[in-house]
Amino acid sequence: MIKERIILGIDPGTNVMGYGVLRVLGNKPELVTMGVFDMRKVKDHYLSLQQIFASTVELIDRHCPDEMALEAPFFGKNVQSMLKLGRAQGVAMAAGLYRELPISEYAPLKIKMAITGNGKASKEQVADMLSRFLKIAPEQMPKTLDATDALAAALCHFFATNAPKSEKKYSSWKDFAAKNQHKIKE
Amino acid sequence: MIKERIILGIDPGTNVMGYGVLRVLGNKPELVTMGVFDMRKVKDHYLSLQQIFASTVELIDRHCPDEMALEAPFFGKNVQSMLKLGRAQGVAMAAGLYRELPISEYAPLKIKMAITGNGKASKEQVADMLSRFLKIAPEQMPKTLDATDALAAALCHFFATNAPKSEKKYSSWKDFAAKNQHKIKE
Repeated sequence: MIKERIILGIDPGTNVMGYGVLRVLGNKPELVTMGVFDMRKVKDHYLSLQQIFASTVELIDRHCPDEMALEAPFFGKNVQSMLKLGRAQGVAMAAGLYRELPISEYAPLKIKMAITGNGKASKEQVADMLSRFLKIAPEQMPKTLDATDALAAALCHFFATNAPKSEKKYSSWKDFAAKNQHKIKE
Repeated sequence: MIKERIILGIDPGTNVMGYGVLRVLGNKPELVTMGVFDMRKVKDHYLSLQQIFASTVELIDRHCPDEMALEAPFFGKNVQSMLKLGRAQGVAMAAGLYRELPISEYAPLKIKMAITGNGKASKEQVADMLSRFLKIAPEQMPKTLDATDALAAALCHFFATNAPKSEKKYSSWKDFAAKNQHKIKE
């Protein structure tokens, strides 16, 4: 039996929230869906947050993901924008935690690095690489790059958790020394 | 019939979250309960956020508040601490929004001003004023000031929403001029 695993990627923001759902069959990831929730027309800050919560819970209930991966910048221009971003992240996380999903977060640089090999890649380059890697037809690609950013977070999480475990794990210096006699200078 | 109104005050933080429940009978506010959720022993960031969400939902279900009032600083030392605070605020708000409570937030300075008349009052002064105003016995006062801060947010919200409406509302300069002939110099 092939093991199935569903990863929900989220790119939270108070104006636009991107999402991408990835299904992994065995070791092969494939796109389920992606899109955005556009809250730019919602004038009330709390209604935006409520929409993030409700939409995320709905996504979880529809796709039954096993894990949630977030794009989460740790640095921002100023304290005001970070507080606003923190709230959007917190509300999206609350939805995941409410449904008892394990959450992982990745910095944008790490996601770009994992997808394109270049931490400074543009959003377009990330989208292009995703369409090739997941064989998404051009007409299926979304116009808003928040959706591909969210999908990239899900794929980055797949790469991070699917990497073959290194066998070089050492419990202590003594353990390392015992296994690496040839590396130790007399 | 005397109208009853329950206000839940929250002082969100990732280490300690304070709460205070106020019951207003007619125009008279009284303490229902206050306390803190201490997450300092919770090592995992997501478990802390999950606890904020679950505890807030539990508080709402137990006390059935009509409104939620948050102490919400808008300025912080650095972007890192603001992101962390934003997440805690977002998760607490998500709990309120999930239960469809209207949310109001007040800056610490505004709360101190409303309770003590001094925007730079200490937490101890705020606690002292609360104990007098709400006639709370000294032995009932909590040791952690996050609880009194949360109760202060609830009381500040009561003051803000219970204030008699000013009758001097003007729709335009023309309107003002018509109603204040005596103030206008020829």
